[in-house]
Amino acid sequence: MDERIRHASVRPSMSVDELLAQMRGCAFGAGRLAECAGIYADMVSDPDCTRFLGLAGAMVPAGMREVVGTMLDHGHVSVLVTTGANMVHDLIEATGGAHLRGSLSEDDCRLREQGMNRIYDVYLPDEHFATFEAWMQEALEGLGRETVTAPELFSYLGSRIKDPGSILRRAHLRGVPVFCPAFGDSMVGLQAWLFSQTRRMAVDSVGELRRFLDLCYAAKRAGVLVVGGGVPKNYIFQSMLLTERGFDYAMQLTMDRPETGGLSGATLEEAQSWGKLRADTRHVTVYCDATIALPIIVAHAMGRVEGERGMGGGGG
Amino acid sequence: MDERIRHASVRPSMSVDELLAQMRGCAFGAGRLAECAGIYADMVSDPDCTRFLGLAGAMVPAGMREVVGTMLDHGHVSVLVTTGANMVHDLIEATGGAHLRGSLSEDDCRLREQGMNRIYDVYLPDEHFATFEAWMQEALEGLGRETVTAPELFSYLGSRIKDPGSILRRAHLRGVPVFCPAFGDSMVGLQAWLFSQTRRMAVDSVGELRRFLDLCYAAKRAGVLVVGGGVPKNYIFQSMLLTERGFDYAMQLTMDRPETGGLSGATLEEAQSWGKLRADTRHVTVYCDATIALPIIVAHAMGRVEGERGMGGGGG
Amino acid sequence: MDERIRHASVRPSMSVDELLAQMRGCAFGAGRLAECAGIYADMVSDPDCTRFLGLAGAMVPAGMREVVGTMLDHGHVSVLVTTGANMVHDLIEATGGAHLRGSLSEDDCRLREQGMNRIYDVYLPDEHFATFEAWMQEALEGLGRETVTAPELFSYLGSRIKDPGSILRRAHLRGVPVFCPAFGDSMVGLQAWLFSQTRRMAVDSVGELRRFLDLCYAAKRAGVLVVGGGVPKNYIFQSMLLTERGFDYAMQLTMDRPETGGLSGATLEEAQSWGKLRADTRHVTVYCDATIALPIIVAHAMGRVEGERGMGGGGG
Amino acid sequence: MDERIRHASVRPSMSVDELLAQMRGCAFGAGRLAECAGIYADMVSDPDCTRFLGLAGAMVPAGMREVVGTMLDHGHVSVLVTTGANMVHDLIEATGGAHLRGSLSEDDCRLREQGMNRIYDVYLPDEHFATFEAWMQEALEGLGRETVTAPELFSYLGSRIKDPGSILRRAHLRGVPVFCPAFGDSMVGLQAWLFSQTRRMAVDSVGELRRFLDLCYAAKRAGVLVVGGGVPKNYIFQSMLLTERGFDYAMQLTMDRPETGGLSGATLEEAQSWGKLRADTRHVTVYCDATIALPIIVAHAMGRVEGERGMGGGGG
Repeated sequence: MDERIRHASVRPSMSVDELLAQMRGCAFGAGRLAECAGIYADMVSDPDCTRFLGLAGAMVPAGMREVVGTMLDHGHVSVLVTTGANMVHDLIEATGGAHLRGSLSEDDCRLREQGMNRIYDVYLPDEHFATFEAWMQEALEGLGRETVTAPELFSYLGSRIKDPGSILRRAHLRGVPVFCPAFGDSMVGLQAWLFSQTRRMAVDSVGELRRFLDLCYAAKRAGVLVVGGGVPKNYIFQSMLLTERGFDYAMQLTMDRPETGGLSGATLEEAQSWGKLRADTRHVTVYCDATIALPIIVAHAMGRVEGERGMGGGGG
Repeated sequence: MDERIRHASVRPSMSVDELLAQMRGCAFGAGRLAECAGIYADMVSDPDCTRFLGLAGAMVPAGMREVVGTMLDHGHVSVLVTTGANMVHDLIEATGGAHLRGSLSEDDCRLREQGMNRIYDVYLPDEHFATFEAWMQEALEGLGRETVTAPELFSYLGSRIKDPGSILRRAHLRGVPVFCPAFGDSMVGLQAWLFSQTRRMAVDSVGELRRFLDLCYAAKRAGVLVVGGGVPKNYIFQSMLLTERGFDYAMQLTMDRPETGGLSGATLEEAQSWGKLRADTRHVTVYCDATIALPIIVAHAMGRVEGERGMGGGGG
Repeated sequence: MDERIRHASVRPSMSVDELLAQMRGCAFGAGRLAECAGIYADMVSDPDCTRFLGLAGAMVPAGMREVVGTMLDHGHVSVLVTTGANMVHDLIEATGGAHLRGSLSEDDCRLREQGMNRIYDVYLPDEHFATFEAWMQEALEGLGRETVTAPELFSYLGSRIKDPGSILRRAHLRGVPVFCPAFGDSMVGLQAWLFSQTRRMAVDSVGELRRFLDLCYAAKRAGVLVVGGGVPKNYIFQSMLLTERGFDYAMQLTMDRPETGGLSGATLEEAQSWGKLRADTRHVTVYCDATIALPIIVAHAMGRVEGERGMGGGGG
Repeated sequence: MDERIRHASVRPSMSVDELLAQMRGCAFGAGRLAECAGIYADMVSDPDCTRFLGLAGAMVPAGMREVVGTMLDHGHVSVLVTTGANMVHDLIEATGGAHLRGSLSEDDCRLREQGMNRIYDVYLPDEHFATFEAWMQEALEGLGRETVTAPELFSYLGSRIKDPGSILRRAHLRGVPVFCPAFGDSMVGLQAWLFSQTRRMAVDSVGELRRFLDLCYAAKRAGVLVVGGGVPKNYIFQSMLLTERGFDYAMQLTMDRPETGGLSGATLEEAQSWGKLRADTRHVTVYCDATIALPIIVAHAMGRVEGERGMGGGGG
């Protein structure tokens, strides 16, 4: 340490890469964001690294669907662990629905009367759920198995999606498994319940864990980007703990705070006390809205990887 | 509205009930805490109300095990929805382990060398996991079923626990089902995985949801206290949404914030736009560490319920 | 360290002191609140201790006026450092105005049309400012000096107030000086400006600092309770730093977070690197809404002090 | 409203302007950042607009000195309102000192022994304060006036600085007054106190307010960018309130939250209830670390302004 802070300078039409280069000499959030972008680019350039992406929050409603899709297309992700919500919102768009820009000042009871479901400053009209439900019930009809795991189900759903923007479709095409440890806690889970009213259907979380741990044990090297904490963060961390090799790279983008003692806001240093991270794991937490930080670090890594591989258009 | 703020006054040896009475005239957190305590006491006094408790965070390591147990004993909870972590820490204490007061200034890599796992300012020694594991593997041995749901498994585990302080035991004795929608995301889930290496074992999240929704549909009236957000919050809210009657009472204790768009920090007003809460649902969010707010509102409700019922010792 | 977490238990009609005793064995916010209450009670019992209270936020509008007044009456405070806002709101009530319980869901532009100024969930009607202004202009008329410091002015204002609930009056009667390092940044400052349109009036911040540092240098022992951070926190800390003896007791109640690098959220450990706190200063930060934490620790200290002194009614 | 969310897409070597264009279709933080960048660019392009910059936090230690300097050079700022701390750190660098990249895991008591003062993850060595003090005492010697206001003093100090990177020097050269409503609450204030031990010196906050309000009244149109809240935010807002015309543009970059009721985290909608913002004021709050958001919006505005003016190198 003990190097000087170098003050960031900005100029018109500067690139995101230049911005990060300028932030590299800074402290606080700017310094952390630049450090994270560097670790992330190294991680996606590491050919032996199994790359975990933990996706909490409501990234799809907020407009991050294409960024996540690009991460998949460019090989940034080996294994996706997500809340059900992110996949539900992916499916809603894949089945023709749309998220709308909303307002915080509208009365929520009036929104209800208008059939508008609010997610912070995003609105989702009721009618899109009807389309989603019809599509889901038809899909579950064709599944042909009584017991599945969440990654099996999501791969199957991804194979039926036509929308090229879909995260589930892109994960399926790339062979990236989609884990969803709180499967029941989502509209997809509720659709499975609805289906199970007339057919037999079970979604097995132990089988899911078995497959996940096989991937963990198979990893030569491992890295993780946690977006927003929650179940995906803990699921990835507790599993790598079993392998006793821990992570080589670990990053989290979060607005949560450590003081409540919850896992979402827990520091990555705390994870070292558990052995989830090794003493020499390169790691950083960026305390920043993920919708701001994620596009920046992904854009940067795309440039780095392209530069190294001498490619023009990325991995897609 | 438009009534005057009445300034709280304090006196030596005042009771928690007096404190809340004084806070009732205040605004900000004090006013909200008093309002929450009032709604909570009304909810637990309502004989027709199905009462959901959503338990996220690390409440057991922090010292809230007895408060939650008391809530169960006194009939404050009809249905418990929890992270696996809270039940893991309950089991660790039930099998003889202990959580220790720790420090934030200790180096986490040194803690690892000492076999100490840190949860904010709590330490958990490695050795307690070994005891927990042995107990769990023996218990799973005796389960005698290949496919279970989380509430079935937790009820079974509760029936084997001798420790009278155990949340799982008290829930079992009271007939309170314990739902755990992210079952795989916990050390209990990992124990099930370990067991499944040599035996067949599946934990079905659709079956869990089926049972949960039956309880939701059966509710004449419904109330919810959300501690800390996370999966339990969403699971309870999305399910009641299906019943189209929503909640009569809804409270959350959280330090999360709405601006990230995540469900944990989402306002209860946002839940109204979905119809999860009705326009006339009595509701309040208290932005406060749950380890401070929960004991206060529970103590207050115990007094209210006793006063009404003319009982001496509560339901225990 | 390394003592066991003792789970808090609650009972009907328990006292605030019992609640704190139960929280003492806990971690997270509960443990910190109990620790803070203990340090605070020791500080107010320490006869040689100069006690600083830093008061930011909008504690008076929220209903904390009487708690602060009680702290003054009972000798808990030797020196008050405050935002101007808290004193403005004290004066507004002292001149007959009132703060009203408001709502977060009201449209703010409509509130403007109704002449209602909102402070989170508190409303303050326009008309009270008119009364306050008339009172202030008359008071400044009688001041009889061209250059004053903020504590001189506030002591003078306190001497003119009849309302026994007033913080300024109680501080004046007790001889507690009221410092306001951002004097211009308040409605009192604006009243001074208005007065200065036709008369000469200067408010000298160097003179204020001189008096403040004299108090710091005179302290045999020193303690500080910071409510909410801001200018009062920094002002108290930077000044004690000069004396090179630092604090014997230091507590802060805050919801701010360290990650932004601002002083409000800075940890008390950071203050040790500056020498503002010594290595052996008893200190704790409670991450809690001050309107919840402050009444609790003050009530507890009142009991402790009374118990020790064998008094019946406190210092009032 | 009710337009569709457009998912951001990223590409290698994309510019900051493209990034913002992509974020424009998003919600949450990304959408707000893009909106803020648009409003900011419009504000700095508005020839009739008096532009206020409120600067709290520790922006200079974090590496934002050059960004703020660029804002001054390019005419983005008409009036600067700051904490003393930001100017102290500017002076420390102007007098040869440096801020160093630090660590959060170092023991703060050990840092004290090493003479290192910590500001989150920045270190500032003790010795730089000695140089700063000598420079300040010599400067105050040459001031030649007994009573000054903060902006007079800062302009004088700026005129003596040789370092071209200095914010105070650049503000002086551009004729931008630097207000510091909590003047005493800073190391500059303490230097004035030290000087006043042997000479007469007063710093008048009413005179400062008089000058500030003259600028407010003179504004044809007005805009404000608040970085981090605190005293600068309230000072600017309360003053414009007097003029009864309010702001045409208002933006804040903050990590503070509304729920504590403090002014730092107060929403801009709350400011509308006071009339500080009009119903039609274009406004947005970005919940983001300012060290990340500020360089982005400034870089963007530089491009916009240059494009419009057909200039090559900015206003410097």
